[in-house]
Formats: sequence, structure tokens, C-alpha cells
Amino acid sequence: MTIQISVDLNADLGEGFGNYRAGNDPLVMKYISSANIACGFHAGDPPVILNTIRLAKEAGVAVGAHPGYPDMQGFGRRTIRMSRDELYAFVLYQTGALKSLAEALGTRLVHVKPHGALYNDAVGNTDIAAAIAEAVYDMDPELLVFGPPNSALENEALQRGLRFVIETFADRAYNSDGTLVPRGKKGAVIYDTEEVAERALAMVRENRIPVQGGGSLLVKPDTICIHGDNPAAVAIAERISQTLIENGVVIKPVI
Amino acid sequence: MTIQISVDLNADLGEGFGNYRAGNDPLVMKYISSANIACGFHAGDPPVILNTIRLAKEAGVAVGAHPGYPDMQGFGRRTIRMSRDELYAFVLYQTGALKSLAEALGTRLVHVKPHGALYNDAVGNTDIAAAIAEAVYDMDPELLVFGPPNSALENEALQRGLRFVIETFADRAYNSDGTLVPRGKKGAVIYDTEEVAERALAMVRENRIPVQGGGSLLVKPDTICIHGDNPAAVAIAERISQTLIENGVVIKPVI
Amino acid sequence: MTIQISVDLNADLGEGFGNYRAGNDPLVMKYISSANIACGFHAGDPPVILNTIRLAKEAGVAVGAHPGYPDMQGFGRRTIRMSRDELYAFVLYQTGALKSLAEALGTRLVHVKPHGALYNDAVGNTDIAAAIAEAVYDMDPELLVFGPPNSALENEALQRGLRFVIETFADRAYNSDGTLVPRGKKGAVIYDTEEVAERALAMVRENRIPVQGGGSLLVKPDTICIHGDNPAAVAIAERISQTLIENGVVIKPVI
Amino acid sequence: MTIQISVDLNADLGEGFGNYRAGNDPLVMKYISSANIACGFHAGDPPVILNTIRLAKEAGVAVGAHPGYPDMQGFGRRTIRMSRDELYAFVLYQTGALKSLAEALGTRLVHVKPHGALYNDAVGNTDIAAAIAEAVYDMDPELLVFGPPNSALENEALQRGLRFVIETFADRAYNSDGTLVPRGKKGAVIYDTEEVAERALAMVRENRIPVQGGGSLLVKPDTICIHGDNPAAVAIAERISQTLIENGVVIKPVI
Repeated sequence: MTIQISVDLNADLGEGFGNYRAGNDPLVMKYISSANIACGFHAGDPPVILNTIRLAKEAGVAVGAHPGYPDMQGFGRRTIRMSRDELYAFVLYQTGALKSLAEALGTRLVHVKPHGALYNDAVGNTDIAAAIAEAVYDMDPELLVFGPPNSALENEALQRGLRFVIETFADRAYNSDGTLVPRGKKGAVIYDTEEVAERALAMVRENRIPVQGGGSLLVKPDTICIHGDNPAAVAIAERISQTLIENGVVIKPVI
Repeated sequence: MTIQISVDLNADLGEGFGNYRAGNDPLVMKYISSANIACGFHAGDPPVILNTIRLAKEAGVAVGAHPGYPDMQGFGRRTIRMSRDELYAFVLYQTGALKSLAEALGTRLVHVKPHGALYNDAVGNTDIAAAIAEAVYDMDPELLVFGPPNSALENEALQRGLRFVIETFADRAYNSDGTLVPRGKKGAVIYDTEEVAERALAMVRENRIPVQGGGSLLVKPDTICIHGDNPAAVAIAERISQTLIENGVVIKPVI
Repeated sequence: MTIQISVDLNADLGEGFGNYRAGNDPLVMKYISSANIACGFHAGDPPVILNTIRLAKEAGVAVGAHPGYPDMQGFGRRTIRMSRDELYAFVLYQTGALKSLAEALGTRLVHVKPHGALYNDAVGNTDIAAAIAEAVYDMDPELLVFGPPNSALENEALQRGLRFVIETFADRAYNSDGTLVPRGKKGAVIYDTEEVAERALAMVRENRIPVQGGGSLLVKPDTICIHGDNPAAVAIAERISQTLIENGVVIKPVI
Repeated sequence: MTIQISVDLNADLGEGFGNYRAGNDPLVMKYISSANIACGFHAGDPPVILNTIRLAKEAGVAVGAHPGYPDMQGFGRRTIRMSRDELYAFVLYQTGALKSLAEALGTRLVHVKPHGALYNDAVGNTDIAAAIAEAVYDMDPELLVFGPPNSALENEALQRGLRFVIETFADRAYNSDGTLVPRGKKGAVIYDTEEVAERALAMVRENRIPVQGGGSLLVKPDTICIHGDNPAAVAIAERISQTLIENGVVIKPVI
């Protein structure tokens, strides 16, 4: 008897805005099991969001909200400092919009994953993590929260009885403390498709992430993030998917 | 035996934005039975919206979504031309955000009333009226639609089996064809508190609206709109409320 | 002795916004003599604008302002109705920002070309054309105004003593009344590179534009617009440029 | 023979946006000598800016640009982190727009004062101060820079040969290190009109600012800021102006 190993693959989608295109959602959608859909504050707009939910539904991909700081020009990659109450309102609004849209289209919201600076801030900032977890809980206690292991967000989510989904990045280098090597630093993003696929497989099968400078972290990821906003995204998604499947890993939502 | 006459009083609330204040929501809330809450596209932002829903819940006032064209600088008073599909997405998003927020705060969304240019466009433009009605229906077929009598919006709402709530304006002058005298034209807005209250009473008891230039329209309003964004709003709301109550009219949501 | 024929080639550039890219400005810049730079209202942001002015200066390309309606989500392709005074303020602001930036970078603003719906509205709407012409004149009476022949904009510009630069489109089909076949209609945009180049040459040498359905318009273009926002833009720009040069036409700013 | 003492009084104006009003600019304008006009990124829009420049011109008040972080919802009171080059572009754009508009209306831009979080960040952050000073210098080396004494902004402005105008606040409490007591802390804002006027007089005549907790700072202000965005603004402006004039102080721009 063999034990079936499975993992979720997620990607950030729905990041177009008006005339601006971003990523290649229909293609990426073929290889993932969960879509984090921008909610209109750091990227996305209502027609883009609706269309992305429709695509996810057709592809059998789980629909997630990807709330971010209100900053289109900065693509949600800058911290917009606000009080915990204000941030709670911003996350609740974005998550709520996605929830209603998913239901109106005959599907449902499965998870919430904060975007960009909000994601990073939720690693160590308790107030920010609490605002997010509280908003998710108040919206629907069945919602999953995606985030990094050992984070304030994990702690705040678990404290409220929310299910927390541990996420790792196959194409990002890690420091020995478990944080990501910041974009802009050398080697922060891994562009070699084969290497990214191998890292994904090692994460899933051996629960091991190589660390920049040597050594490795022990982490068991529930979901692996694939970036959809770079030209190689589709090729990387396809390669990771193939590598995992060929090695007997089932790709499916956490649910 | 007397027949109990009742009417709904509604006002547009939650129109602040960041540091900008608008109206005096807590005071107006005392005199109305339905609140149309701006959704963040022509006015409002998540903290303002949340706070306004809380105020409505505490005051026992029915919560409504007040979707508008995406145009903060123009306060939703300018038509933003879009395809029916795009408009459907914009209305669905705004209505959906309000629905989820209301539910997260332990109350529920009762009605939808389009704002400003979107309201005016829905009087005669079938495509626009259909986009709104379809979005409301897909969000929740139990939602009420507020709008002007004999409008395309009424027609599109009723066709889908939605309940349509006929709205009139106590402080706006009417043309003989039932349309409002446009803002900017002489006499378009009635500022005399007493006169506004008398008009409201005549509408409710006699189902009669005086027309600019003489004569009157026969309309039975289900709800009367009180504007909340002018300095006299509170005084007018109080006076209308008093006049109606003194004359035996019960002020309550349509529901 | 031969008479030297010359024409200006212009393109809309600087349309990126934050993380969103648009067009391939550095490549297109090699083939044009005038750049219409988005001003931040329908596209563009300050770093993008600055960078585009720098590119134009280095390439010896004339710097122009490309003001549009305030509508990022709609990319300036929708009319935002405003009073003449309001529109005057919006055009003055955008043109003024570009003028100051050009001067701060050691070059100068040469021309103004309205964008999208504002361009189209200025064909027949006297108020809109007058607001634009007045703003340009008040900013600097030496500025050139780019626009379509026989338009309200031409009339309003010339009335104020502004120099008007007649623009035609090599890749757009024309109706017999001189207006463009609207995007979305069949054959509105010509994608065949060779055909576009031949049309450009016919416009410059024979002052003739083929009309959809047969016949041709007689127009002497001072500048020909090359679109920079489609994938084939660079190939088309290169081909038009080559065809014109091979046929003895000099490509240079109007100045 | 008496020595004539003079000081500049400045206020932040032009902070309306679309339908949103802010402050009472025409009244405040009567008592000040310099207006810091919002540029449309944290507050203001083109029609509001134009109108405010016209008001200043008519009142003989010096026109200044009041650039802020791009954040309407946060009213420029939150830091939006960006690179020095990006911030340079944002300040240059805003300052440039105001400069062109002032000149188009037949007056000229006299000074630049950063707003809100940008002002506070320029106290101690060299990169931010340098980005501002560089943008001002590149726009026009004759422009004055308004800011707090002993700040990074003063240093960066003076290094480039710009004239730096020392600003103090009559209605804000100071710490002993010369920084303002942050809004939100007890006693941070002084509401007593008489006290504010007395503080202004002491600043100008004795070059002394009382410090929260006792003692005083020695600072010679070139300009004193009057806030225009609170209900008492007009009364405070009038009282300060009267108190200064009655005590022989001339209120006039620095120039």
C-alpha cells in the first residue's frame, strides 16, 4: 500500500486593470489547483475579477481572495500604514466582495491569501496579522488562510480556530530563518525552470527547502506558490506540475 | 376601523472618504428607516462603509447598497459609459461587498438603489437598467430594488421577479412627465423645510406630487428619499418625520 | 532640383503605470519624430513620464503632452462629461505638468495632442475643442496642437492663432466624411504591416487616403500617427519609417 | 529709529476634491501671505487648484506648491515608501504642475512645502529630503523651500543653494528636541485662539517657542503655519493676524 502524497499549487491571478493586461491567466489556470484573485485594491477591477472567477470555476480551480493594501500604483508592494480597525475594514471589504461574487457565479470562496506588502507585514506584525485573521473569521470561519509557516498570521489564524495553509515558494530563495530573500537581492528569484521544479518536488516529498548559503529548512508545505506575473510563468507552472505528477504527487486544493 | 398608512424614508449615507467628511449620518439615521450606503466607487471607503452599517444596525435602519459609477472626483454624477457586461460586474461587485459586510456585522442587505448618474441612466436606458437588475438578481433574488416609477429599472426588476420599491423625492421638483427637474434648473431643489414636509405628506396620503408649472402626478410612493448631503438635511429629515408621524403615518422599511 | 518632402511620425508613449507595462517605448522611439506622452490621468505616472521624456530627449524626438480624461480604468477611452471650465482645468494641469517636466530635464514641450475620447470629442464638440485650445494657448501660445483635419479643434486652435498640425492614421480605416471607422467595426484597424506602410506613403506623397467602401479623401497630413500599444507596433513603425525614407521622405518634427 | 519686524503667515489650501469641500479658503486667504496649494495627489483636483491660485493672486498671497504622497484616501498622512528616484519624480511632477498653472494664470510659483507624512519624513530622512530638494532645484533654483528648522530638508536645500524658509506652528505643541508633539497625543494641538495668537507673537518677537513640559526653544521663524482644515481655522487666522499687526509686526511673504 502506498501513501498518496498531495499538494496544492496556487498562483496570483486576476491582476489586469482596465486596458492593462497582466499574466496569462487562462494558461496558468491549467496547472494550478487554487487561484488567489486580486480584489481591486492593488490590482484587478470588477470585470477582470468576474472573468477570473469564471475561469477558475470552469477549470475546477479553488477560488481565493487576494486582498492587498489600497495602492494600484505601487501594486500593493508598499506598506500603507493604518490602524488595526482600518485594516480590518479593508480586508473585510475585499474578502467580502470576492465571496459574494463567487457565490453569485455559482461557486464559493475557499481561501484568503494576503498580497505583497500585506503578506510580508503579516509575518511578524501581530496587529496586522490579527486584523487579517479577524476579518477572515468574521467573514466566514470556514475560510482557509494561506500564509508562511511560523508567522504571526499563522498564530492569529489558529488562535481563532481558522484552518491555516502553509505556503512555500518554489521560485524564491530562502534565508536560514525561514524568511524569503528580498526581491532585488542577488539570487532572490530563481529563473531556471528545471531548478524551480526540483525545489518544488523536494519541498513536497522531503519537506525540505534549500537555504541560500547552505543547509535547508524543514517545512511541510500544504500549498506551493507559482508566480503568474512573469513571462516564464506558464512554462514554470507546466514544469512544476509535470514534475510533481510524474513523481506521483497529486495536485489538488487543500479543502 | 382605520387603515394604517406607512412609508419608508431613505437617505444616501456613508459618503465620507478618508479625511473628507460628508453629511451627518448619525443624526439623519434617527429619522429614516432605510440607508443607502455608498460602496466606495463614487464615495465611501471600507472604514466609512463598515461604520455606517454599524450605525444602521444600531438604529434599526435597513441596510442598502448604493452602487455608483467608478468616479470619486465626479461623485458618481457623470455617466461612465461601459458595456452591459462591464456595468453588471461593477454593480455586482459593489452590491456583493455590501452584502458580505452586512452579514459579517450580523445584519443583512435589504435593498439596492443605484446612485446619481447611474440612477438617472436607469430611468430610460434598457441596457443599463438590465445590467443593474441582473446583478441584483444574481446576488440575491430577495433583494429589493429602489427606483423611480415607470422606469426601465422598474420594468427590468419586475421582469426578473424582483420586488421594486417606488421612490419619490420630497425635496425635488417634478416635471409633468414624472422626471425630476434637473439640478441646476430653477426650483429644482426645494429648500423650505415646511414645504418639503408637506410635499412628503401629500405624496403618502394623497399619492399626489405637485408638478412644476401646475397640476400633479398620481404616484403611490413606497419610499421617500431624504438627501443627507446638504447642511439642512438633518432639519429636513426631522421635520418630514415629525409631520408624517403627527399625521398618523408609520415610518418603516418596506420589507 | 527636387523638392524635399517631409512628414512627422508620432506615437502615444509613456502609457505604463506602476507595475503595469505598456508598449515598447525605447524601440518605437527609434522610428518616430514626435512623442505624445500620457500625463497620468488616463495612463502614466510621474516616474514613467520622466523616463519617457528622458528617452525622447536622448532620441532627439519632440516631446508632446497627451492629456486625457481622468479615467485610468477606462484608459481615457470614455467621455467624462464636465463643464468647459472643468475641462480647461484638467487640460491645463496635464499640459502644465508635462511642460515643467520637459524644462526641468533640459528640453521643452513642443506639442499637445488630446487622447482617446477627448480627441474624438474635440472633432465635433465646440465647447470641448475650445477648452483644449484655450488651455494650450494659456499655457504657451507657441505650442502646436495635433488633431484631425476639419475638426472643431482645428477651428478653435486657428482662431486663437495656435499652429494646428494635421494628423492622419496609417493603420486606421477612414469613412468618406473623413472620420475614422470606429474600433470594433470590421476593418477599422489595419494589421498588415505592408499595407499600413503603403497607406502612409500615399498620404504623404499623394495627399490621398483610401476610404472604406471605395474612393479616397484628399488630405495633406503634417504628422502620421503610429500606434505604440499593440504587439506589432515596433514592426509597423520600422516598416513605415523605412518605406518613407526609401521613397525620399524626410521624417522630422513639424516645428 | 525702529526696526521693522515682519513674518510670513502660511496655510494649506486647495484641499477640496470633486464634491468634497475642505476648509474655508476665501476667508483664510484674507489673513495669510503665503498659500500652500495641494497638488492633486493627497488632496485637490485641477479645478480646485486653479480656483485656489486665482484666489491667491487676487488676494496678493504668494503661491506655493504643497506636494504630498500619492494617497487621497490617507490625505497624505501616511508614508508611501518609494525609491529616491521615484519620489523625485512625484515631487517634480506636482511642483511642475503648480508652476505651470501659476504662470498660465499670470502669477508665479514662489515656494514649495512638502505635506503631511512627506514633511515629517523630510525632517530626518536624508534620501527623502534630498529627493525633494533636488526636484525643487531642478524645477527652478529660485523657488523657496519651506520646512522645519535643523531638518535634513534644510540641510539638503541649503547645500544646493536653495533658500530655506524656517517654519513654525503656532497651534502645535513642541517637544524639547524641536519636533512636534504627534497628533493624537494629549495637548498636541492647541485650540485656544488667544493662546495660539500669543504663541505666534512670542515666536516672532522673542524667537522663543514654549516646550511641552516646560522650557522653550530658540527659533527665529520666517513663516508661521496656520491650519486651514479645522472649523476654528478662520477665527485663529484672524486672531493671529490681528495680534501680530497690533504689535507692529508686518505680515508679508518672504520673497
